[in-house]
Amino acid sequence: MDRHRIETLLNEVREGRTPVDEALDRLRDLPFEDLGFAKIDHHRALRTGMPEVIFGAGKTAAQVATIFARMAQAGGNVLATRATREMFDAVQALELINQAPRAEFHEAARAITLTQASAVSGKGTIAVVCAGTSDLPVAEEAVVAARLMGNTVELIADVGVAGIHRLLAQKHGLQSARVLIVCAGMEGALPTVVGGLVNAPVIAVPTSVGYGASFGGVAALLGMLNTCSPNVSVVNIDNGFGAACIASLINHL
Amino acid sequence: MDRHRIETLLNEVREGRTPVDEALDRLRDLPFEDLGFAKIDHHRALRTGMPEVIFGAGKTAAQVATIFARMAQAGGNVLATRATREMFDAVQALELINQAPRAEFHEAARAITLTQASAVSGKGTIAVVCAGTSDLPVAEEAVVAARLMGNTVELIADVGVAGIHRLLAQKHGLQSARVLIVCAGMEGALPTVVGGLVNAPVIAVPTSVGYGASFGGVAALLGMLNTCSPNVSVVNIDNGFGAACIASLINHL
Amino acid sequence: MDRHRIETLLNEVREGRTPVDEALDRLRDLPFEDLGFAKIDHHRALRTGMPEVIFGAGKTAAQVATIFARMAQAGGNVLATRATREMFDAVQALELINQAPRAEFHEAARAITLTQASAVSGKGTIAVVCAGTSDLPVAEEAVVAARLMGNTVELIADVGVAGIHRLLAQKHGLQSARVLIVCAGMEGALPTVVGGLVNAPVIAVPTSVGYGASFGGVAALLGMLNTCSPNVSVVNIDNGFGAACIASLINHL
Amino acid sequence: MDRHRIETLLNEVREGRTPVDEALDRLRDLPFEDLGFAKIDHHRALRTGMPEVIFGAGKTAAQVATIFARMAQAGGNVLATRATREMFDAVQALELINQAPRAEFHEAARAITLTQASAVSGKGTIAVVCAGTSDLPVAEEAVVAARLMGNTVELIADVGVAGIHRLLAQKHGLQSARVLIVCAGMEGALPTVVGGLVNAPVIAVPTSVGYGASFGGVAALLGMLNTCSPNVSVVNIDNGFGAACIASLINHL
Amino acid sequence: MDRHRIETLLNEVREGRTPVDEALDRLRDLPFEDLGFAKIDHHRALRTGMPEVIFGAGKTAAQVATIFARMAQAGGNVLATRATREMFDAVQALELINQAPRAEFHEAARAITLTQASAVSGKGTIAVVCAGTSDLPVAEEAVVAARLMGNTVELIADVGVAGIHRLLAQKHGLQSARVLIVCAGMEGALPTVVGGLVNAPVIAVPTSVGYGASFGGVAALLGMLNTCSPNVSVVNIDNGFGAACIASLINHL
Amino acid sequence: MDRHRIETLLNEVREGRTPVDEALDRLRDLPFEDLGFAKIDHHRALRTGMPEVIFGAGKTAAQVATIFARMAQAGGNVLATRATREMFDAVQALELINQAPRAEFHEAARAITLTQASAVSGKGTIAVVCAGTSDLPVAEEAVVAARLMGNTVELIADVGVAGIHRLLAQKHGLQSARVLIVCAGMEGALPTVVGGLVNAPVIAVPTSVGYGASFGGVAALLGMLNTCSPNVSVVNIDNGFGAACIASLINHL
Amino acid sequence: MDRHRIETLLNEVREGRTPVDEALDRLRDLPFEDLGFAKIDHHRALRTGMPEVIFGAGKTAAQVATIFARMAQAGGNVLATRATREMFDAVQALELINQAPRAEFHEAARAITLTQASAVSGKGTIAVVCAGTSDLPVAEEAVVAARLMGNTVELIADVGVAGIHRLLAQKHGLQSARVLIVCAGMEGALPTVVGGLVNAPVIAVPTSVGYGASFGGVAALLGMLNTCSPNVSVVNIDNGFGAACIASLINHL
Amino acid sequence: MDRHRIETLLNEVREGRTPVDEALDRLRDLPFEDLGFAKIDHHRALRTGMPEVIFGAGKTAAQVATIFARMAQAGGNVLATRATREMFDAVQALELINQAPRAEFHEAARAITLTQASAVSGKGTIAVVCAGTSDLPVAEEAVVAARLMGNTVELIADVGVAGIHRLLAQKHGLQSARVLIVCAGMEGALPTVVGGLVNAPVIAVPTSVGYGASFGGVAALLGMLNTCSPNVSVVNIDNGFGAACIASLINHL
Repeated sequence: MDRHRIETLLNEVREGRTPVDEALDRLRDLPFEDLGFAKIDHHRALRTGMPEVIFGAGKTAAQVATIFARMAQAGGNVLATRATREMFDAVQALELINQAPRAEFHEAARAITLTQASAVSGKGTIAVVCAGTSDLPVAEEAVVAARLMGNTVELIADVGVAGIHRLLAQKHGLQSARVLIVCAGMEGALPTVVGGLVNAPVIAVPTSVGYGASFGGVAALLGMLNTCSPNVSVVNIDNGFGAACIASLINHL
Repeated sequence: MDRHRIETLLNEVREGRTPVDEALDRLRDLPFEDLGFAKIDHHRALRTGMPEVIFGAGKTAAQVATIFARMAQAGGNVLATRATREMFDAVQALELINQAPRAEFHEAARAITLTQASAVSGKGTIAVVCAGTSDLPVAEEAVVAARLMGNTVELIADVGVAGIHRLLAQKHGLQSARVLIVCAGMEGALPTVVGGLVNAPVIAVPTSVGYGASFGGVAALLGMLNTCSPNVSVVNIDNGFGAACIASLINHL
Repeated sequence: MDRHRIETLLNEVREGRTPVDEALDRLRDLPFEDLGFAKIDHHRALRTGMPEVIFGAGKTAAQVATIFARMAQAGGNVLATRATREMFDAVQALELINQAPRAEFHEAARAITLTQASAVSGKGTIAVVCAGTSDLPVAEEAVVAARLMGNTVELIADVGVAGIHRLLAQKHGLQSARVLIVCAGMEGALPTVVGGLVNAPVIAVPTSVGYGASFGGVAALLGMLNTCSPNVSVVNIDNGFGAACIASLINHL
Repeated sequence: MDRHRIETLLNEVREGRTPVDEALDRLRDLPFEDLGFAKIDHHRALRTGMPEVIFGAGKTAAQVATIFARMAQAGGNVLATRATREMFDAVQALELINQAPRAEFHEAARAITLTQASAVSGKGTIAVVCAGTSDLPVAEEAVVAARLMGNTVELIADVGVAGIHRLLAQKHGLQSARVLIVCAGMEGALPTVVGGLVNAPVIAVPTSVGYGASFGGVAALLGMLNTCSPNVSVVNIDNGFGAACIASLINHL
Repeated sequence: MDRHRIETLLNEVREGRTPVDEALDRLRDLPFEDLGFAKIDHHRALRTGMPEVIFGAGKTAAQVATIFARMAQAGGNVLATRATREMFDAVQALELINQAPRAEFHEAARAITLTQASAVSGKGTIAVVCAGTSDLPVAEEAVVAARLMGNTVELIADVGVAGIHRLLAQKHGLQSARVLIVCAGMEGALPTVVGGLVNAPVIAVPTSVGYGASFGGVAALLGMLNTCSPNVSVVNIDNGFGAACIASLINHL
Repeated sequence: MDRHRIETLLNEVREGRTPVDEALDRLRDLPFEDLGFAKIDHHRALRTGMPEVIFGAGKTAAQVATIFARMAQAGGNVLATRATREMFDAVQALELINQAPRAEFHEAARAITLTQASAVSGKGTIAVVCAGTSDLPVAEEAVVAARLMGNTVELIADVGVAGIHRLLAQKHGLQSARVLIVCAGMEGALPTVVGGLVNAPVIAVPTSVGYGASFGGVAALLGMLNTCSPNVSVVNIDNGFGAACIASLINHL
Repeated sequence: MDRHRIETLLNEVREGRTPVDEALDRLRDLPFEDLGFAKIDHHRALRTGMPEVIFGAGKTAAQVATIFARMAQAGGNVLATRATREMFDAVQALELINQAPRAEFHEAARAITLTQASAVSGKGTIAVVCAGTSDLPVAEEAVVAARLMGNTVELIADVGVAGIHRLLAQKHGLQSARVLIVCAGMEGALPTVVGGLVNAPVIAVPTSVGYGASFGGVAALLGMLNTCSPNVSVVNIDNGFGAACIASLINHL
Repeated sequence: MDRHRIETLLNEVREGRTPVDEALDRLRDLPFEDLGFAKIDHHRALRTGMPEVIFGAGKTAAQVATIFARMAQAGGNVLATRATREMFDAVQALELINQAPRAEFHEAARAITLTQASAVSGKGTIAVVCAGTSDLPVAEEAVVAARLMGNTVELIADVGVAGIHRLLAQKHGLQSARVLIVCAGMEGALPTVVGGLVNAPVIAVPTSVGYGASFGGVAALLGMLNTCSPNVSVVNIDNGFGAACIASLINHL
């Protein structure tokens, strides 16, 4: 319903019936005290050099849009993960009220970004590697997040371990990365094989891709934890964003 | 205690105090009716073309030795898996009574074999592949069992996925096999990678090698069940013998 | 939405408003670069002697149809598993544009096939065995896939272990197969019993059929991994296609 | 150490140094108030028609012997399960003091019994069925317990589902039972197959026999819970005694 | 869609447009060969004294109705479990064609029954016990099924272990039963407490009632398997029908 | 080996060969800097009103004894849990050197205590309830710990839910407690039943007692978490000490 | 459908077509005997000092409303947990018939309350602590329930362990509470950290918040059970109500 | 037994009975061809900049010693993890034969090291953090390994989350590290709290410390995977060595 109020407001602004200032005042009436459902810690973002981040899952479009707008005012980059197109529409609606529509939607990555600082600050390249079509949403989330954190990112997709020649063909790209993020579902063996090919830290991301005994990514997770490549560490299932944070921290060292 | 009686008997035979015939009579007094604790189904062995097999784990040395001796009388090959040297000593003791010590002990494979029919009947080569030192007992069990079933077997060891070049160096050996058995613990990725390199059936054997989140082979098992190579099927953890049975059946088609 | 564009195009072609050539040009505008979301490896299919395969689950009807059409151009057989009727409609729509509607939909098997090479190349018969009505989708997937790979296939259904006489009545059919695929849910005992009746390799497929403590096929999977028939190996839950691949490889040896 | 006191006492009684009465007085000094570590509920045994029962695991030999002696005084049958020979020795020692050594040790069943009432009160036969050598301890526990409860019991062993002809050869014995107890480890399929052959209640007992993915009997337990034979219910892993209780209750109806 | 054909046919019969004979002929055209998707084993039902049974879950309304009609022709009782009202409508539609609408729908039990033989043949009373409102569907399934099998059944509901006085108030009803079925979710303690109050066999049915760490009935299942009442055996989660089968078999001894 | 040095020292002191002062100096040479392997936080003990506590499992007897002696010097009560008699011997040895042997060993509770402040400060009674002999070690640990924390404690043992009349006989004792600790293994139902009988907070302690599907206390733990008595909270398996801490805090409110 | 009847009735009352008395009579015709699906135990509520409670999940709006109305007549407070707005509408409809609309809906807490006794009877303050936005529903359920039980409650939100300074800023509020409820999802570490800061009992509530390896709250549950703060006990996942019951009992001591 | 041969040889060398040259010849007779049970890949060590590493668990002392000696000849640093004192004795024995005893044993870390290159090459400090005494072996393994890889390492121990003030007291040490390794058992919350205090990558190592529901480190592992600190990645349970490898790679960037 809040969503509805925002869109109504937007239509009025578009049609000239409501001036922007009045719209902002009316927006202030939405039931968010101190955003109510969330306290934003701008200092953390500044402190850690990461963008402000919203975890979209389980939030309404209106909640995401409101948090996004407040975060945008802090002047840094903003990222909403696990976001839907409906959330992006709400974000754009609020931006329109402020007459500054600049957020972007990354459909594959399920992410909304606002880039207010775009300089590349990372020292080398982060390679994001994945096997199949199904792992792409997680890999793209890592790509989008890592770029927003000021890194040069290269995506190397469709290189599963069952067709090892396709992976070996990418050997140069893999070995020239300063740090790698490797996403895989099913048996989760890709990070181990990649880890054996490079001499850089590998962040492994198990994905929930698979069926039957994949148990929603548990098989891949266990495979990665039991890796015999000593340069591989692991994050939670489908956590492309977390992998990007760690890779970016390393790439800025 | 039965073990003790057998050894006592053996010593007497050795020292000439008890003639062999009398020893066999006394052996008959051991508390095994129809072997008591086990019924041997010689017809099954003949029917399936496999050797007579004893699963040693959980049996006493005397039990293994007695079953082994009875099976040997049927004239075919005999195999005891999960066997200890103590069991082998007991087997040899009984053989000595019969004045026919021919069984062999395979320490790495934890197997006792008696080869009474040694012709190679399998049509091609079975490749048994494993990654590390720790997987060798399972791989060797497969090797010993497959050979006893009349197959030419090639062991390709120390080819883990974390050092993919070592595996690729064995490409010819892998591709010339008619059927492959691939043993791996930890993340269990080796069968998938091998499966992608060959166009033959691959029997994957998860091993209980590993620690922590390997959960005694469960991680490897799940990895193999979720393989993205469509030519891989799986047997129970550490079941090198079962893999050899299936591979031998295929190799005799 | 892509789906919609394809169907719109199809209607226009049907109604004569758009010539076929122009339709193909417009199809080229769909947002698929190098199919974008997938790279097709025709060489693998040729290399392994298997049909080109699409795993339908998680893909849109339009994606399946587009991949299917490109694969069809390579000249071999094409198979889409976990497919819906909606996907088949999209496949047919594209075929209509190309004026070559030849794909078939197998409802029970949830599969779409295109048969461009139909010679029987397998040496013997593959028996596909299952217990109840509920296991049929998995069994049918195996049947359809194995036939497309050039095998003679016999389906033996409704032979559960709780009514052992029905299974024994099929003894001849079971024993005349060169390799068997046995699908079972719930307690998953069928492969073991069948394995004891035949002297051929058995590929066991646990199905997700059951409730409560079946845990989506885990009970059946564990039962099959712990089989006491030494000629049984196992694939992932509901993986009828994988079982067909392995059985076909064996049947072509 | 209590064990030591009992044996010392026994030796003195045997050698005539201590009269029996004095021995009993000294036994009273053992640190068992109201048996201290246990309260015996003789009424429950009488109420339920079952023997007095001691679960031996985790108790000392002296504790088992003392409880056993007190229970024996109540006049009914007594059963100690999960018992060791050392426990039996202690039980016999106390009996000797009382000059009434009548308890028996069942090695395979790991049980000590005292039969003070031996009339057969059950209406039909209880069949106890198991597959392999390894399941025998659990099956024997059920046999011993059911007999002590006044039942005619028939043991049908070595009838695994992988050799179905051996099971079918026992069809008459199975079908003439009023109630059946079926013990199985590994894939646990035997109760389902037996359940399909008979029209009587089947109590299934999963055993901890197996390795790897048998998970100490869990695979067998799940197989039995997912049985497709509607006349099968299940007890805890290795719980031969519990199965005997239920079967005996049914057989006395 | 088959459903649609059946209902269309029914409407025509109702409105007199199609005579019953012609309707039956047209029904014969439905794509069921030997029922196609199922083979009915009338002999099993006769052999075991149980009604013909259809497991409704996962079948279409038309499939259930057709199987139900064929089973009805065998002359015995018919039971469909896990049935919906839609399935019942289809069953009634077919009955109308045969001009014999006699099936009943038991909403709470999710069951359809046809009673063609209603004599009480069981020797005593089966008590069906459950704790809360949420366990009722499973308990009712047991009640309906047990009655259809010729038993006198008493339902004792709302007697959870957290209010033990309510359970004790039912002591007489519990103790006068010849066999008991006890359904419970959450911690699953009810069968143990009931088992301690009676001297009859108790069939425990874990239900999937609960949340969080109940894991869909697993907590209750484990509680029941670990019962310290020796007269309790267990069936699968939510398996009220199975419990009724076993209880009825016992009640007919 | 340190153990050996302590005992040697003790013998010398006993035999008068080494004066106490010299012994203390030599003790100082043991390789414990700042206790080395542990930092003692006396302030926490004072802050929380709990005794100083040592978790004995995994420590050597010498380590326990040394920590115990240092803690004793702080003047408060000291508790070592999961302690062995060997640890107690070492503790006594050090006390002897200090000529102040006052620690006590509680064999059933596997605990060593030193009571330097014995006033009862808790406001009411803590009832510690358990079912069988096997749960006693955990219950006794709770009893010993709660008493050392200044509480009046009543132990109510041998009141399992399978014999509900024994529990009801203790109703007065249960209802007069200010807070209750209820320990149970196997199905873990006792806290729920007790919780329904009282109107006070119940701390449930699952014990690892059981076999098979008890999974080392997991079945009991799940049962307690799913309790339908709303006054029950749960601690870790076998954590009698933790339950005592919470109960004591509540009893001092 | 019952829902529909209630609303129809309400509309008629509103529009004056049906007098209230007649409406109540018609309400009596709803198929609830003794509420049919539930027996209300008013004595328990009075006995335990807790409000009457309805667990809303799995009940229809009409069922909740009817139980709520009957409970309200007993004169105490009433609480419906896991309630929807639709349920609240039905509750209000019935209240309107009785011309006494006083129930309140707490959206965040998913709770309906009726406060007929509002005196504060608890002795101190209950602090309810949670980390993030997503844990709020569980925390609010605890807040609403604890207030209805007569407690002063303080909610301390947004204090996750990853930003420890925010938690420390609330140190005074935490330490002035007499008992604390701490809700956390994901890694579930908050209760441990809070437990180390206070000297009062902490009730930990794992929430199902998280994704991937959080397994619906299991990770948080395990974290809390393994706490190294000895003043923490745990309730089921998402069980805010249960935590409130225990905290209230403690706060009334 | 090989162990015995090595020690015999050593004694002879020590006592002058066998010259060193002859000893080396005899050593060559040990049954290691190409080390037989292991192929050493010196190139990998050189390639990755890590020391040669032996995983000691499951190897005999003689095997470890022989591999260690061969690795030492390559001129780099050598590390044996999960090593026992018996293994170290064997390593020293071989060194004595070569007249170059330089290896060190780290008892707490269960590691044997040989330092042939000791320059510090890492750019900053690696902080290794752990909570309690029990986590020390894992933390020490990380310390020893990281130092051998050329890093400055600071160990910060005894800083558990239940006493947050002790952790905060180490804030400076934590924040001055370039990368951190955090080891924790039980609830595994320490990496999350540390992660919130620093702006550097954190490698979390779950340890198998705990009991009951810690499940050998699984609780800690899940806690770490579900961390809400975005700079934390995880390795396998007890894998201090793996954490050191990753941290060293990062510290050398």
